[in-house]
Amino acid sequence: MIIIMKSGATDAQIDNVIRWIESLGYKAHPSRGVERTIIGAVGDNRDKSYLKLAESLSGVERTMPILKPYKLASRETKEGRTVITVGNVEIGGPRFVVMAGPCAVESEEQMMESAYIAKKGGADILRGGAFKPRTSPYSFQGMEEDGLKLLAMARERTGLPVVTEVVNPADVELVESYADVMQIGARNVQNFALLKEVGQSKKPVLLKRGMMTTIEELLMSAEYILSAGNQRVILCERGIRTFETATRNTLDLSAVPVLKQMTHLPVIVDPSHAAGNWRYVLPLSRAAMAVGADGLIVEVHPEPDHAVSDGVQSLKPEKFYRLMEDIRLLENTLRRDM
Amino acid sequence: MIIIMKSGATDAQIDNVIRWIESLGYKAHPSRGVERTIIGAVGDNRDKSYLKLAESLSGVERTMPILKPYKLASRETKEGRTVITVGNVEIGGPRFVVMAGPCAVESEEQMMESAYIAKKGGADILRGGAFKPRTSPYSFQGMEEDGLKLLAMARERTGLPVVTEVVNPADVELVESYADVMQIGARNVQNFALLKEVGQSKKPVLLKRGMMTTIEELLMSAEYILSAGNQRVILCERGIRTFETATRNTLDLSAVPVLKQMTHLPVIVDPSHAAGNWRYVLPLSRAAMAVGADGLIVEVHPEPDHAVSDGVQSLKPEKFYRLMEDIRLLENTLRRDM
Amino acid sequence: MIIIMKSGATDAQIDNVIRWIESLGYKAHPSRGVERTIIGAVGDNRDKSYLKLAESLSGVERTMPILKPYKLASRETKEGRTVITVGNVEIGGPRFVVMAGPCAVESEEQMMESAYIAKKGGADILRGGAFKPRTSPYSFQGMEEDGLKLLAMARERTGLPVVTEVVNPADVELVESYADVMQIGARNVQNFALLKEVGQSKKPVLLKRGMMTTIEELLMSAEYILSAGNQRVILCERGIRTFETATRNTLDLSAVPVLKQMTHLPVIVDPSHAAGNWRYVLPLSRAAMAVGADGLIVEVHPEPDHAVSDGVQSLKPEKFYRLMEDIRLLENTLRRDM
Amino acid sequence: MIIIMKSGATDAQIDNVIRWIESLGYKAHPSRGVERTIIGAVGDNRDKSYLKLAESLSGVERTMPILKPYKLASRETKEGRTVITVGNVEIGGPRFVVMAGPCAVESEEQMMESAYIAKKGGADILRGGAFKPRTSPYSFQGMEEDGLKLLAMARERTGLPVVTEVVNPADVELVESYADVMQIGARNVQNFALLKEVGQSKKPVLLKRGMMTTIEELLMSAEYILSAGNQRVILCERGIRTFETATRNTLDLSAVPVLKQMTHLPVIVDPSHAAGNWRYVLPLSRAAMAVGADGLIVEVHPEPDHAVSDGVQSLKPEKFYRLMEDIRLLENTLRRDM
Repeated sequence: MIIIMKSGATDAQIDNVIRWIESLGYKAHPSRGVERTIIGAVGDNRDKSYLKLAESLSGVERTMPILKPYKLASRETKEGRTVITVGNVEIGGPRFVVMAGPCAVESEEQMMESAYIAKKGGADILRGGAFKPRTSPYSFQGMEEDGLKLLAMARERTGLPVVTEVVNPADVELVESYADVMQIGARNVQNFALLKEVGQSKKPVLLKRGMMTTIEELLMSAEYILSAGNQRVILCERGIRTFETATRNTLDLSAVPVLKQMTHLPVIVDPSHAAGNWRYVLPLSRAAMAVGADGLIVEVHPEPDHAVSDGVQSLKPEKFYRLMEDIRLLENTLRRDM
Repeated sequence: MIIIMKSGATDAQIDNVIRWIESLGYKAHPSRGVERTIIGAVGDNRDKSYLKLAESLSGVERTMPILKPYKLASRETKEGRTVITVGNVEIGGPRFVVMAGPCAVESEEQMMESAYIAKKGGADILRGGAFKPRTSPYSFQGMEEDGLKLLAMARERTGLPVVTEVVNPADVELVESYADVMQIGARNVQNFALLKEVGQSKKPVLLKRGMMTTIEELLMSAEYILSAGNQRVILCERGIRTFETATRNTLDLSAVPVLKQMTHLPVIVDPSHAAGNWRYVLPLSRAAMAVGADGLIVEVHPEPDHAVSDGVQSLKPEKFYRLMEDIRLLENTLRRDM
Repeated sequence: MIIIMKSGATDAQIDNVIRWIESLGYKAHPSRGVERTIIGAVGDNRDKSYLKLAESLSGVERTMPILKPYKLASRETKEGRTVITVGNVEIGGPRFVVMAGPCAVESEEQMMESAYIAKKGGADILRGGAFKPRTSPYSFQGMEEDGLKLLAMARERTGLPVVTEVVNPADVELVESYADVMQIGARNVQNFALLKEVGQSKKPVLLKRGMMTTIEELLMSAEYILSAGNQRVILCERGIRTFETATRNTLDLSAVPVLKQMTHLPVIVDPSHAAGNWRYVLPLSRAAMAVGADGLIVEVHPEPDHAVSDGVQSLKPEKFYRLMEDIRLLENTLRRDM
Repeated sequence: MIIIMKSGATDAQIDNVIRWIESLGYKAHPSRGVERTIIGAVGDNRDKSYLKLAESLSGVERTMPILKPYKLASRETKEGRTVITVGNVEIGGPRFVVMAGPCAVESEEQMMESAYIAKKGGADILRGGAFKPRTSPYSFQGMEEDGLKLLAMARERTGLPVVTEVVNPADVELVESYADVMQIGARNVQNFALLKEVGQSKKPVLLKRGMMTTIEELLMSAEYILSAGNQRVILCERGIRTFETATRNTLDLSAVPVLKQMTHLPVIVDPSHAAGNWRYVLPLSRAAMAVGADGLIVEVHPEPDHAVSDGVQSLKPEKFYRLMEDIRLLENTLRRDM
């Protein structure tokens, strides 16, 4: 942490800050410049949040953190890339991974049909929501355990592993008994009680960035899971909230190369929820691949205009097959070493 | 819901949309304009989310909702203002209510001292966090039940009702056994499992707006609590996330008069978390009152430069007393009929 | 400027950065910490933008500026507050100043009527746009010089000084020949050619914050005017663009106390453009005053539902009189020493 | 325009709105629903801004525009795609176009070297700023006409057409006498005086989206140029301002397919200014191509760590050559029919 004194801070104020830093168990390194003095506080405690309190001391202008607040998620801690194996799918490895399926599990027929479409198109993992976090209490809230059973049935029939969301810490045990990958949705990215709970699990976790979450905060949320003992975390960019309303959210594809600089964890992209419109899912999927993501999660529905949830952004089967063709074509062109 | 056809949509496309609307149980009211046709879909089902699917039909440009998606929170449903009584404090009534106390309960000494400061300054309700949602897993996570016990002790000694946060649906029963008001924090504003749980409670709920939650979404979250049976919801504006970094978040004071137009629920303001700096808490508190809020929630700490959490934004006792003086002065000047 | 080396940066990399800093004429102050080395670059050149290039050197993680990039606008340069005198109105002095009038000058009748309303309500300065920056080329673009003449006529009849917008550097001479205060609108806050031009003028400049402008950037824009020789700059907060759509923009009232910490220049608030709806102008005006602004600029129109521009946010005469009453009431209560 | 009455609006209020609509020369189409009445206002005047005033009438809840406010830029007006020819380069045609060069023209040596690098890498157009809009008045403001002369010299030597920025309406004549394409920078996207001026020009205009400009507003700014007579407008996505600070701005790649739906104008992407860091320029360039853009504009500098402006985001020659290789590789794979 660096503490920047006001221009004109007195020696007494500077000494006071130095003593205060030392009282917290850090070493103080003052450096007197032409216009102002700055003081470094050095120590090995990862929680530097106390040091920010220097801002309430007399003569202090502001503080600036030097160290990154996340550790286990950082590339400084772990060299190389984390590859997460689910069945015989490797996430974060040389192949680009596609997760596909309907937004919500609605019925046996809809779920099986979706699973066969995903399988036929060449998806690696099947998605489908059994617990649905919906803005309105009057909207369909998901089939819950019955939905999980249908997912398990679809896995059995197609051989595809399944990813599904968990929204309540009390349901983690139930969900992990059915799912191959547990998803933490965008609205729960800072639901720390839930993060701690899935941190206890042996199953991989797909952690979606929130609409309001900085890249650093996403890594801090991953750190909750990692520090609780679960090392298998997949990050997912799914759009952030901005002033632009032409798409539901603004897909932040720059976050992919930024995350690749900051963390060893795999990063996938969800273009369906970001765009909120199936028309943009194809070009954004190609772009996600070209920007260096490790995979995609997309919504596919046998009949989008009768889906109970998010039909506007779901691909019809033929559009999904076209997307998979494009993906395979690009995969042969792009070097995956980025 | 209004469905806007593309300019140049064919009669067949228009007929198809009409039939589709009717298949969902709504009446279709087409209106052919010079440049394009629009079709109203009328019915009494509150969940209009299906109708948005019209956007995937051929010839449709976009859909526009007409009805507000929240109902119980709306002024159309309930005339007059909701007044919530906690002990002998009325929130939403003629008096401006101040909730004050430390960010986190840290120790008996700190909590009792804070409680006496709040009481001496004339606060109506005492705040203090026992369960703390922290961005970093390495930061202090709260004293949990021990903290709740200290809050109860502080209530006993000062007579002030207490408000404290709950973060896990599994803890609601525990927290409500100690608290007079349960707080849902900004990060949990769309933690629907938690909202449903506090909706079952008899205790009032202080619902904070999230950093990236629209005013309408805040009302939808309130609707979760109201529709589960708990009518005692207090809304709280606490700053939204924007590009500006001079303050931690941007306090959206316009949200207060906007909410007063939209809902009968009381609205208070948290200037401490929004500003992230005690220097701005006084002027923003005055402004919150002048803009028509029903109250404030502010952080006060006997020794902010040794607080374990959010010390930078906590008021020292003398600043808090000055704030309370300003509030009382303004209260006599401003008409509270707005 | 502080340059933070990567953890694991080699001595050769550190030496290279030090030599590079010195080659630019700065002194380098390295400080080797437990986890990483940081290097201060000290010198007296205000343009530190070169130093940011350190980020492209090998072994460098990032750079952090220490000094504020604005100088003349800063409270470090000038103690006390700048008070700007226009006729016998003092902006930034003990009295709260109100500027009022229609969005656009539309006709002699409308302008004179508006002027009398402003005068009757007790406004200090009359506003009215003759050059209108409009999002659409098909919208009314202003009466131009004819509008300026009507403003001058209104000044003559009411004795109120006038403020009006200039949008083209080529028009500055014309506009300053009529106006008492020249306004730079939000969309031109970084129109540096225009800022340089009004910096040559002797007339005060009302500089509006852009929808997308940070507080620091606003001060940098003021610095353009100040450094060109014109010391009479009034800053104006008028709402920033956020994800929230319930109001046209989000009025950032926190910016007022923040600016008061950073600069000696006066700060006023425009609640009309921020809210985009007359209903919110009254409470936001009271809040602007309570938060410590030096004044207001509001839109008033004799017949808002027939205004050619921004009628939705214009106050009817009686609402404006009510606002002025509230202002005078608050003025007696609030200490203006903040 | 659709006018939505409040639930409970009286017949008298509805009649009043209908009469008001008709007094403005539009036809009113009321439609009485179960919960509320909506009234369509139909007419052929493109400036519907008057109709928004209905929001100040009694009983009106809000208004909703139906027609798009831009016309000439719209695909409804012009079928097919606009292809803009500059020398023998076609922008918007089947080939992906790359514009490359330094941020600022700094000296003859730097400019010629940059031009040869651009040429060698296979760029189609050379970029370089002679008039630089800089946040700080103390930063380098550009070589002005001397810079334009160097650009012309570079064109002569390499055969590459040049694109350069114009910031002042008074300079348009000068800049167009040297440039092949005139650029309007992000900060001037709503500098309407400047837009009108380049609308008079015969030279193509590269119009950059502002940091806080919606896609619709970008098209309205294009409409200024088109309606003034210049049909050769190239749009450029260059990042929008969001809460995320890991990149300088957030590149909104979704804007590309959205614009392709809305307009016939070509769309290119500037990853350098968006990212603010050369590390992300390669992956974002690939993504821009994959998402369907018509081209790129990137910053290349012979020695980025001594650039006077924006060196951090400039590519070194070898990185630029690598980028061009990737582009050519992808060009053979991607279908350009999207």
